[in-house]
Amino acid sequence: MITGKNYIGSQLKGNGDKTYRTFNPQLNIENLWEFTEATHEEIEEAVTLADQAFKIYKNCSGQEKASFLNAIADEILAIGDPLLEMYCTESGLPRGRAEGERGRTIFQLRSFADMLTVGSWVEATLDTAIPERQPLPKEDLRKMLVPIGPIVVFGSSNFPFAFSTAGGDTASALAAGCPVIVKSHSMHIGTGEMVASAVIKAAKKTNMPEGVFSNLIGSGVVLGASLVKHPLVKAVGFTGSIKGGRALFNLASQRPEPIPVFAEMGSINPVVILPNALENESQKWASTYAGSITLGTGQFCTNPGLLLAIKGENLNNFATQLAEEVEKITPSCMLHPSIKADYDVGKETIKSQKGVDTVVEYKGEIAANYASQTILTVDGKTFLENPTLSHEVFGPFSILVQCDDEVQLVSIISQLDGQLTGTIISEDSEIGNYINVIDSLQNRVGRLIFNGVPTGVEVCPSMIHGGPYPASSDSRFTAVGIHAVKRWVRPFSFQNWPDKLLPLELQNENPLGISRLVNTIQTSLPIL
Amino acid sequence: MITGKNYIGSQLKGNGDKTYRTFNPQLNIENLWEFTEATHEEIEEAVTLADQAFKIYKNCSGQEKASFLNAIADEILAIGDPLLEMYCTESGLPRGRAEGERGRTIFQLRSFADMLTVGSWVEATLDTAIPERQPLPKEDLRKMLVPIGPIVVFGSSNFPFAFSTAGGDTASALAAGCPVIVKSHSMHIGTGEMVASAVIKAAKKTNMPEGVFSNLIGSGVVLGASLVKHPLVKAVGFTGSIKGGRALFNLASQRPEPIPVFAEMGSINPVVILPNALENESQKWASTYAGSITLGTGQFCTNPGLLLAIKGENLNNFATQLAEEVEKITPSCMLHPSIKADYDVGKETIKSQKGVDTVVEYKGEIAANYASQTILTVDGKTFLENPTLSHEVFGPFSILVQCDDEVQLVSIISQLDGQLTGTIISEDSEIGNYINVIDSLQNRVGRLIFNGVPTGVEVCPSMIHGGPYPASSDSRFTAVGIHAVKRWVRPFSFQNWPDKLLPLELQNENPLGISRLVNTIQTSLPIL
Repeated sequence: MITGKNYIGSQLKGNGDKTYRTFNPQLNIENLWEFTEATHEEIEEAVTLADQAFKIYKNCSGQEKASFLNAIADEILAIGDPLLEMYCTESGLPRGRAEGERGRTIFQLRSFADMLTVGSWVEATLDTAIPERQPLPKEDLRKMLVPIGPIVVFGSSNFPFAFSTAGGDTASALAAGCPVIVKSHSMHIGTGEMVASAVIKAAKKTNMPEGVFSNLIGSGVVLGASLVKHPLVKAVGFTGSIKGGRALFNLASQRPEPIPVFAEMGSINPVVILPNALENESQKWASTYAGSITLGTGQFCTNPGLLLAIKGENLNNFATQLAEEVEKITPSCMLHPSIKADYDVGKETIKSQKGVDTVVEYKGEIAANYASQTILTVDGKTFLENPTLSHEVFGPFSILVQCDDEVQLVSIISQLDGQLTGTIISEDSEIGNYINVIDSLQNRVGRLIFNGVPTGVEVCPSMIHGGPYPASSDSRFTAVGIHAVKRWVRPFSFQNWPDKLLPLELQNENPLGISRLVNTIQTSLPIL
Repeated sequence: MITGKNYIGSQLKGNGDKTYRTFNPQLNIENLWEFTEATHEEIEEAVTLADQAFKIYKNCSGQEKASFLNAIADEILAIGDPLLEMYCTESGLPRGRAEGERGRTIFQLRSFADMLTVGSWVEATLDTAIPERQPLPKEDLRKMLVPIGPIVVFGSSNFPFAFSTAGGDTASALAAGCPVIVKSHSMHIGTGEMVASAVIKAAKKTNMPEGVFSNLIGSGVVLGASLVKHPLVKAVGFTGSIKGGRALFNLASQRPEPIPVFAEMGSINPVVILPNALENESQKWASTYAGSITLGTGQFCTNPGLLLAIKGENLNNFATQLAEEVEKITPSCMLHPSIKADYDVGKETIKSQKGVDTVVEYKGEIAANYASQTILTVDGKTFLENPTLSHEVFGPFSILVQCDDEVQLVSIISQLDGQLTGTIISEDSEIGNYINVIDSLQNRVGRLIFNGVPTGVEVCPSMIHGGPYPASSDSRFTAVGIHAVKRWVRPFSFQNWPDKLLPLELQNENPLGISRLVNTIQTSLPIL
């Protein structure tokens, strides 16, 4: 059942006047449910509850937090089909994607639960006392990561499960020991309410403190800004546009007490195709990239929006093959009419720039809110001179830049904004000759891919999802993988602290059996 | 020899018109050397050189960077007595302190060199491919920390060696693989030039790229702002006032590409003395704290500027004993007339507040630029109501707050700004009864100390020097200890990357023999 209300901790409240509806882009109609904007009082109550919950939740054991995260996963699964149906209704995405993304979300929650169960993630570091040291005795010092306080999470438009209500930001913040207040994304508030109900059920079943999680409805300008400016909020997670992320970053950095904002924003994910690969494997890569560019209607932050290669006959052949492959693909639905409108405006803006030609634009009949996949092309000099050509067009779009030579290729890469990913398509025999290309690309991205596609972001400890600005607001952190927890913690030292009052992670006996750095040696043995 | 010029990479340049002189606070006279402000062109050249150096320096091996850092330490020592004399001349600090701080600086440089030699600090994390995984194969992913680019370091007034030219910020940034541009602190430009000459010599001896280090002279408003706003600068390290640090933070966060600023700013380092300790050991703690408050003329960021206890006869006795101990201490010289003037203004401002009484103020004859150590007192209610009373007074100053009860004590702690340290003075038998006090204190600080003093910041992996704002601008990092390197690096992923093109740290054979997280197991074994 959809109530249309806000979760203020475990309480459903909807005292506001303003209401919202979500949209079914496949049917091109508004959905019937009415969702009520959180009032000022409700926002205040959610934040106050989160602050109170923090005092208890920060002291919960890893096992307790792991049980909570696993229970959230269980409760999401327990909703079953209605949740998948709501997801499809509000996003226009197909059933298979809903199932896959739910699986990813469950996996993320359980990965953090596993991390908590092992317990070594707190980076316990111990340096024991040396009372006889000259000229001064050395005191006992012990350090570990501790949570920073209530976190506000802004859900994304394009991942209603995996980067929204109980997605990676929420899971990592709860794992850290931080209460979470979600600003539900306006395009899938119903999906958000259902997932929020699962989080609330899980919190009750595992005896978590009231206020450890709230889910609020409203606009970014009013609700979002109120949350980011609230003195009790200690950090922000965001996935979305550069404009939105930067606005939140500015608000947060102008507070009397500035707080960190981890915003994962825009990216055009450059792909460099080297000459031998272009000569010998162009058909394979044309087919692979036609698939990558159109996957999920191109609505991925890792969508390859920029293809770079050195001009010539082989590149012309590749363009022809890419056009043929792209034409074969059946268009699909975008998330919302506004996203479709933005796609069309972005695409037409770039098409209208001087020197831009069309490689392929799907010309068949398409339904409302469906996107015509498009590849444009331009020469390297024109691309270098016109910054508009490197703007992200969110959707099934890419621009193929025909460079004069390697020098121009390196200049183009060096001048790019920060990106989530960079890809090199190459034969083994040639890659060693392009060290400058690789080096300049590495400097602009968070992840380098060899002979693959940037779409598909594996959830594992070695993944970096983030990169130099504006790919993310702080390249020193990742949004995907268990190390995403590091965004919400700070290291904390105890000096000469009585053993029995230390957290278990730092006690001599190492009762949790975690791996620790003891006097510069990594070990799980106790201190004698 | 002092040239009075800027080091633009290894070149001494001084084409500017404006000059500066430093001051000898012990003799109360200006020093004779003239130092020339860096011109706009010199600033531009230093930054451009740093950016060019980065392309080479980021690929230097750990051994090469370790040799550089060790050579810096060697060259600083090689300057010998003249450096110590210059330090004393420009700071008014005694010879013993100069030697001690030089030792600390050398130790810091060598600690980072050791970290680089071991090599495991890059947090290498490897997840190998699983081609047969369903529904999709798992790609090979490998991650490590890489440097972010040229760093600007603002030296501190109070540590002319350890937090200045070749201090902790510079050493950690160079260890990370980032070139450094130092804005020399205006109070000890001569000391800065001598240390900079050691860094430049070391860079030449170890074949480091030109521009890996520059040392510039000028004001914070002009030189400092130019550096922080420069698009090629990628992060900032700062030690100083809240006003200065916040100004740089604002500039950095308002850039088109915002960059991280790690500013270590103000702190009054609350000390809570619990009832039994007050009753049974007041003389011991009075003597210890008289020493800690006046150490280095109170010019430490960890100076205990706030003493908190519950009122009563025992606290009155402690105040009397503290007064007697403080009176016994011979006043000492401050760093600069401006610091002495700020000390007097800050002290008088607090003395003039309603309800503030003087416990002790040194009344003997004192020389110019010497500080009269002072302890004031106030009741808890007055302290809670007047925010001026919690302003930092940089110098040998502390305010003793007489709380009504534990509840008021907790309120006071909870309302404090973020602090570097918090200290509990307690008998073992009573500490278990004050969990709320400890809990609220932990929430406001970066380091908790039991039965000790906050002054004295051990350089070791377990140290946190940093804390909630405004103790530092980002509590997720430390300025002291080898983990200070984490401020200047970002994690980077390679996906499906050819083994021979990977950095040595991530290759299958693990040629450096470092400790890595391989498929979630910490090991230094190779991958078969």
